[in-house]
Amino acid sequence: MTGAECLLRTLIEGNIDLCFMNPGTSEMQFVSALDRVPSMRGVLCLQENVCSGAADGYARMTGRPAATLLHLGPGLANALSNFHNARKARSPIVNIVGEHSTAHLRYDAPLTADVEAFARPVSGWVKTLASPLDMGEAAREAVAECLRPPGQVASLIVPADHSWSEAGPVGAAPEIIPRRVPDAARFEAIRWAVAHAGPAALYLGGSAASEAGLRAAAATGLPVFVNRYAGRVPRGRPWAFARRVAYFPEFAEVMLDGLRQLILVEAEPPVSFFGYPDRRSTVTPEECSTPLLAAQDEDGVAALLALGVGAPLPPEPAPLEMPPDGPLTLSALGAVLACLLPEGTIVSEEMVSSSEPVSAALNHAAPHELLPVSGGSIGQCLPVAVGAALACPDRQVVALEADGSGMYSLQALWTMARENLQVITIIFANRRYRILEVEMARTGSGPVGPRAAEMMDIGRPSLDWVRLAQGMGVQASRAATAGEFRSQLQSALLARAPRLIEALI
Amino acid sequence: MTGAECLLRTLIEGNIDLCFMNPGTSEMQFVSALDRVPSMRGVLCLQENVCSGAADGYARMTGRPAATLLHLGPGLANALSNFHNARKARSPIVNIVGEHSTAHLRYDAPLTADVEAFARPVSGWVKTLASPLDMGEAAREAVAECLRPPGQVASLIVPADHSWSEAGPVGAAPEIIPRRVPDAARFEAIRWAVAHAGPAALYLGGSAASEAGLRAAAATGLPVFVNRYAGRVPRGRPWAFARRVAYFPEFAEVMLDGLRQLILVEAEPPVSFFGYPDRRSTVTPEECSTPLLAAQDEDGVAALLALGVGAPLPPEPAPLEMPPDGPLTLSALGAVLACLLPEGTIVSEEMVSSSEPVSAALNHAAPHELLPVSGGSIGQCLPVAVGAALACPDRQVVALEADGSGMYSLQALWTMARENLQVITIIFANRRYRILEVEMARTGSGPVGPRAAEMMDIGRPSLDWVRLAQGMGVQASRAATAGEFRSQLQSALLARAPRLIEALI
Repeated sequence: MTGAECLLRTLIEGNIDLCFMNPGTSEMQFVSALDRVPSMRGVLCLQENVCSGAADGYARMTGRPAATLLHLGPGLANALSNFHNARKARSPIVNIVGEHSTAHLRYDAPLTADVEAFARPVSGWVKTLASPLDMGEAAREAVAECLRPPGQVASLIVPADHSWSEAGPVGAAPEIIPRRVPDAARFEAIRWAVAHAGPAALYLGGSAASEAGLRAAAATGLPVFVNRYAGRVPRGRPWAFARRVAYFPEFAEVMLDGLRQLILVEAEPPVSFFGYPDRRSTVTPEECSTPLLAAQDEDGVAALLALGVGAPLPPEPAPLEMPPDGPLTLSALGAVLACLLPEGTIVSEEMVSSSEPVSAALNHAAPHELLPVSGGSIGQCLPVAVGAALACPDRQVVALEADGSGMYSLQALWTMARENLQVITIIFANRRYRILEVEMARTGSGPVGPRAAEMMDIGRPSLDWVRLAQGMGVQASRAATAGEFRSQLQSALLARAPRLIEALI
Repeated sequence: MTGAECLLRTLIEGNIDLCFMNPGTSEMQFVSALDRVPSMRGVLCLQENVCSGAADGYARMTGRPAATLLHLGPGLANALSNFHNARKARSPIVNIVGEHSTAHLRYDAPLTADVEAFARPVSGWVKTLASPLDMGEAAREAVAECLRPPGQVASLIVPADHSWSEAGPVGAAPEIIPRRVPDAARFEAIRWAVAHAGPAALYLGGSAASEAGLRAAAATGLPVFVNRYAGRVPRGRPWAFARRVAYFPEFAEVMLDGLRQLILVEAEPPVSFFGYPDRRSTVTPEECSTPLLAAQDEDGVAALLALGVGAPLPPEPAPLEMPPDGPLTLSALGAVLACLLPEGTIVSEEMVSSSEPVSAALNHAAPHELLPVSGGSIGQCLPVAVGAALACPDRQVVALEADGSGMYSLQALWTMARENLQVITIIFANRRYRILEVEMARTGSGPVGPRAAEMMDIGRPSLDWVRLAQGMGVQASRAATAGEFRSQLQSALLARAPRLIEALI
């Protein structure tokens, strides 16, 4: 058995059976081994950031890691920004990176680079395999480490000769380290503070931003806020009571105004996305403390249950009316989505400047799950949708994507077509880096001059997302009115296949 | 004057007047300053690897750095693989990366990452600005460092508050460190060895792989080989005598067979691109020594001139006949190119498995310049073509790109359209990762099974490059025969505007 086959078999033992790959010469042994390890499914992506983003989406939906297989330092480099997002989402991923054969490494061949240095900023664990005999043990360790709470990227770098040489034994399934349950003394202290120390609310992230977590949080009777960058959040009418803290700090401050305690459950205190001149980064009131109920590697749901007092879920907002035909405003688009998205839809979201009105409308939708921006590196939405669709093949996935952001990893559309994934991509086409126009004013840069405006104008030439999608095998259409959007979305939902709608907003 | 304006003015002082950018909030002050520093031209790219690749192409053609402006760690991450290629091409680039404001950095905001760690593997110089008062001096140092022979990426990381705060003085133009001329004793030793130590040849890279270098090399009367990964190489009939060492080591060995000395001029000894089972990495004969005439940071042309004895340029190969209409084989395609490409064409090349027959035909073309794969990270060709076209607006640029490789940074097409660049992109569409089929056999992986074959098949679904190009505003057509390719290339050459031809090979 080669090292490559040993690695795949060890992953299977560790319950990892899907690998997003963009392999090169140094990974050919892994590709070859797919025919000898048929329980490992290989999914090809045409650019590496699709691999890392898809593994992130898969992990968010299953709680299980997928593997990624990448080609040397530069192939890994292409995947780093979505690994950054996965790191912030706390997604477990086993990242396998090929390296030159050990004899070849001493030469300055074109592709020679410091692979570990590329891996470190995004990985909680990095190892370069020292011998093919250690493959099973190293792969087992990678699986264990990526699942170490709260989850992380584990990067295993494999010199090519260790893939083609005879390996040692296959690694066993690793012992899974569970999340720790916080000490009961902490519950006591929080209970006391809630009763005596002024207005309190809960702030949930990680595994606490789940259905079980939201139910337990509601039972406390406290107001509930959710980290808007948590990896996976239940949304729709039943969960509208749990408010996502706003992007801009002024709005976040208004939401949190009057609180004396924001109780942290698998979350750090909320801060502004960016720093701005003449304002602080924190958004909680100055006099508000942030006591810890559960750290990010602890069991926030258990902690909430220990705190709970049995209040029922708060009342739901009403469903929306289907909007009449007319201009395709963001509110109209949001209302159409809120009316049509079936229960259980998975929404991958990167609408950027279009986000607020659409998200507000989706509070009136049937229960669904949101996969938000986690690390802020744009180009996440379409790859995450790929991974979510492979994780949950029976569920509808909808990718809500800005036209600017979508361009960073549009190659994901090809994998949607290839794997016939049930993903509807909706492109919010405003032909601008609209968010930057807003942010420029906020950073005190003064009025936007004509040359600055050009750097935020992506409409010269206009991107034609219908042609881009068709070029990668995805059926596509363009909607300029609310009526067109409604009928195109209705037929896309019936298709159970990849579709793209370019919404001209 | 803000820090951002000070930086732009210092770059102008240092003779840098072009910036490839994909800015975000933390870089808005730079964008704003474009209106106050009109001699700095901003070129927008829709993904960061286009910025880094374009800066590489620009530097290869001008010898001058361009700047790149990128958004925090993840924006930099997206640019790393083409910075890797630039590093291997020894291209000077000033890479400006925004960072959170210093007050915001202590918080774990979504985009917070270790920017320096991302920068280090590709940069010869990295600095995080400590104070806005130091901006002029730091930017001056970045310009000087990127031009330190043989050229490198210099990364300056700028916290947002140092961009919006009042800066110190603008930095002066830096003193340029020249390449050293090797010691005369080295010439003597090489002359003696050539006369007495058996068959010798020259191996040129860096600035020695230039017209002046090739002329001086020819004058020695020795056989001349060129590093196939040098950043910029004159090609066509006059320069066909200078042979690029083959990609596969067996062929490279045949080329170098019988040599006892391969004299290095701004080059390391040639090695195989990858290591393979049961063969060495070096490709020179076992008994061949590799004496150094000029190191990579030395003046190889001066060294060759010191060695020279005045032999004329070797005879040229004959021009090719225009092939008749018929199947679009690689030789037919190469012959059409060799017949039609005007003198002075700049060819950016990433044909991968299609390279050998086309390159052989181009030895019969009019004199032109080749920008080869330098670091082996695919996705280089189209961005490098963007930079070359901006560097040399009066010259025709042709990008010879494989369909698999082109997908890594296809966003470059949009910048070609936006800037109306005279770039003809030719996509070699074989719908396969063909090179991997070859490499798989070479790594001893045994016969290609059906599941392995799927991971090298990018034809399910087929990419439609005509639609992809049109989607980004580039006129495009498809050629299935030699005649179609000829007529489409002829009209593209007349257009003096971006065009794409998908060649079905």
